Amino acid sequence: MSKFAKDFKPKHFGWSVEGKVATVTLNRPERKNPLTFESYAELRDTFRALNYVEDVKTVVITGEGGNFCSGGDVHEIIGPLVKMKEAGDMAGLLAFTRMTGDLVKAIQHCPQPVIAAVDGICAGAGAILAMASDLRIGTPRTRTAFLFVRVGLAGADMGACNILPRIIGSGRAAELLYTGRSMSAEEGERWGFYNRLVAPEQVLGDAQALAKELSDGPTFAHGITKTCLHQEWSMDLDAAIEAEAQAQAICMQTQDFARAYHAFVAKQKPVFEGN
Amino acid sequence: MSKFAKDFKPKHFGWSVEGKVATVTLNRPERKNPLTFESYAELRDTFRALNYVEDVKTVVITGEGGNFCSGGDVHEIIGPLVKMKEAGDMAGLLAFTRMTGDLVKAIQHCPQPVIAAVDGICAGAGAILAMASDLRIGTPRTRTAFLFVRVGLAGADMGACNILPRIIGSGRAAELLYTGRSMSAEEGERWGFYNRLVAPEQVLGDAQALAKELSDGPTFAHGITKTCLHQEWSMDLDAAIEAEAQAQAICMQTQDFARAYHAFVAKQKPVFEGN
Amino acid sequence: MSKFAKDFKPKHFGWSVEGKVATVTLNRPERKNPLTFESYAELRDTFRALNYVEDVKTVVITGEGGNFCSGGDVHEIIGPLVKMKEAGDMAGLLAFTRMTGDLVKAIQHCPQPVIAAVDGICAGAGAILAMASDLRIGTPRTRTAFLFVRVGLAGADMGACNILPRIIGSGRAAELLYTGRSMSAEEGERWGFYNRLVAPEQVLGDAQALAKELSDGPTFAHGITKTCLHQEWSMDLDAAIEAEAQAQAICMQTQDFARAYHAFVAKQKPVFEGN
Repeated sequence: MSKFAKDFKPKHFGWSVEGKVATVTLNRPERKNPLTFESYAELRDTFRALNYVEDVKTVVITGEGGNFCSGGDVHEIIGPLVKMKEAGDMAGLLAFTRMTGDLVKAIQHCPQPVIAAVDGICAGAGAILAMASDLRIGTPRTRTAFLFVRVGLAGADMGACNILPRIIGSGRAAELLYTGRSMSAEEGERWGFYNRLVAPEQVLGDAQALAKELSDGPTFAHGITKTCLHQEWSMDLDAAIEAEAQAQAICMQTQDFARAYHAFVAKQKPVFEGN
Repeated sequence: MSKFAKDFKPKHFGWSVEGKVATVTLNRPERKNPLTFESYAELRDTFRALNYVEDVKTVVITGEGGNFCSGGDVHEIIGPLVKMKEAGDMAGLLAFTRMTGDLVKAIQHCPQPVIAAVDGICAGAGAILAMASDLRIGTPRTRTAFLFVRVGLAGADMGACNILPRIIGSGRAAELLYTGRSMSAEEGERWGFYNRLVAPEQVLGDAQALAKELSDGPTFAHGITKTCLHQEWSMDLDAAIEAEAQAQAICMQTQDFARAYHAFVAKQKPVFEGN
Repeated sequence: MSKFAKDFKPKHFGWSVEGKVATVTLNRPERKNPLTFESYAELRDTFRALNYVEDVKTVVITGEGGNFCSGGDVHEIIGPLVKMKEAGDMAGLLAFTRMTGDLVKAIQHCPQPVIAAVDGICAGAGAILAMASDLRIGTPRTRTAFLFVRVGLAGADMGACNILPRIIGSGRAAELLYTGRSMSAEEGERWGFYNRLVAPEQVLGDAQALAKELSDGPTFAHGITKTCLHQEWSMDLDAAIEAEAQAQAICMQTQDFARAYHAFVAKQKPVFEGN
């Protein structure tokens, strides 16, 4: 991707830009939008590139055809991994798990808030994509399953043991990761995984409307909020408070801070520009 | 403040002591109890001084006139900060964000549990004061908003990105910090921000009654609980367990531990003295 | 305990093995199953030994007679501790708090998931045993109290200030630890402490059924999930993702991973063997 997000034409997922909001659409609906080696890598590269893209301020990620994402494709991913295992190719296996982990890192390190619009099946690496996003909107029929255990693996995939307990608490995370069972939509909302549930026909529009709202806000400050939310999880209290003192002092040097004040004094609505 | 809390006469907020419970009252009700440079500094100094005050064992913080606190005053705080920004006074901005962070540190480092009694508006730095408290009681009309984004700033203010996710989970915290929207009272209780909701006319009395209950307990041990709750957040499991082995062994050397046992054997109610 | 769990005959609690599931039963029902110096030590040694036991893949812990555990016995534990205190035996007190902490470490460090089946009273060290387990099933009459404050001590006991906030959030944990009040069963489920509530006559059977389900899964991978859930709490995000890349690559080298894939391709149910 160049600096101009509108011209970007990814090969393995859909991409559209409306105003300052980019939408990533997983688009193999006939198989519930599974991931492949190629789509993992292209998603990773895309979120990494977003660090340097100036015309996109928020990203929505969604799936086509009533499902979010069914995770790593059994034939295109699990099969080749089992072949590596049978060949004793440890380096190949680690290269794969690091690539998938790098996708989560890329989502969390780009400055744009990422909003997942999740309908239907949200399973395996799909559930991880939702988890790694900053905000999540579901529907009453969303089924979210961290089902790694069903394919003989650990729940420790792409950061799930670290991130999921932060969102829903460690007792509930443990149950989902040990059993691989689906979290119902109602549980997802009640436990704080989904910020809200809306009708299936609304979920993408609502996510994009929320993304637009954020994009019209002080987007430089949003990037700082995102950095701090992720970086401070493992900090002690005093270090975190000092980190925020510095972070907020930086934000007070932006024009958006002055714009908000002058608009308030003039009894106008501020127009933020992200700088 | 001297050792004698009853004689303390702060200039920028109300202060009263009843038994071993001190109540801080933000008292500019005509403006919904905003904070100013002076009240921030005096609150910070007061919570720092509480480390050495022996006759106060629990602190209640509340607001006058049906609101808790509207945050930093637009005219008295935001205006001068924007002037600093326009003058390129980075040192001045950082001095301010560090002062506000120091207030949170002071609240969390004093040995007394702090209970926020929160009615009506609880916004910006007011929401931070509630968040930094150890326990929170709200009312059905409490509206809590981390609205820094509305003034062009990051949600990373006074430790919010570190502390708020611990209380309500990181997905819900992200929504509040990115959007600046109000958390309703019902959400606040359901998400674990408010320990309970009571009628507006009861909230201060209930907070003071809970404070009295804690003050009548083993207050030395409460101070250790507070230290451990804050200090262990960023510890690994084994280090935390060792820290508590040491902490509890200290508490077992207090008279209150023996008092509780002897009262139990004598079928009496223990009378704790905080030593 | 030898490698053969079926032959194990503990002195201070019940022990049974059914298939690959071991059940620990606290069995002094006439006193609501209190702990003693001896039972603490034997539980610690048992969970430590489970690291090297091959025929047990999941552990259920429960209490006899309608209660889970009333905690440290007042006469057999608190009394002797108060004598140590009065004799100024700090080393003795610390040896005790370290022994109890070592029990929590042993529960969390053994590779088997531990499921607590909790009916009735679950208090003091009993509440800690439930908290230290990986999964918890309660009943409508379960009452869970971290009541250390009632005996003049801090809530900082056996890791509670570190672990409880991870499960139910730090605001709710603070209330329970400062006041010592009971968490009702309904609160326990709503706050994420109990994974679910079932009828008292079902709780042990349901816990054992869940244990059997986990034991029939990829148990090597479960051990990795457990390690990661505990170890990553204090890691930063990038380190956690790298840890999981390595952990999952290890799991991809197990036979269970290949078994799941080959079963899927053959349209059969996988039979996991834990290797």
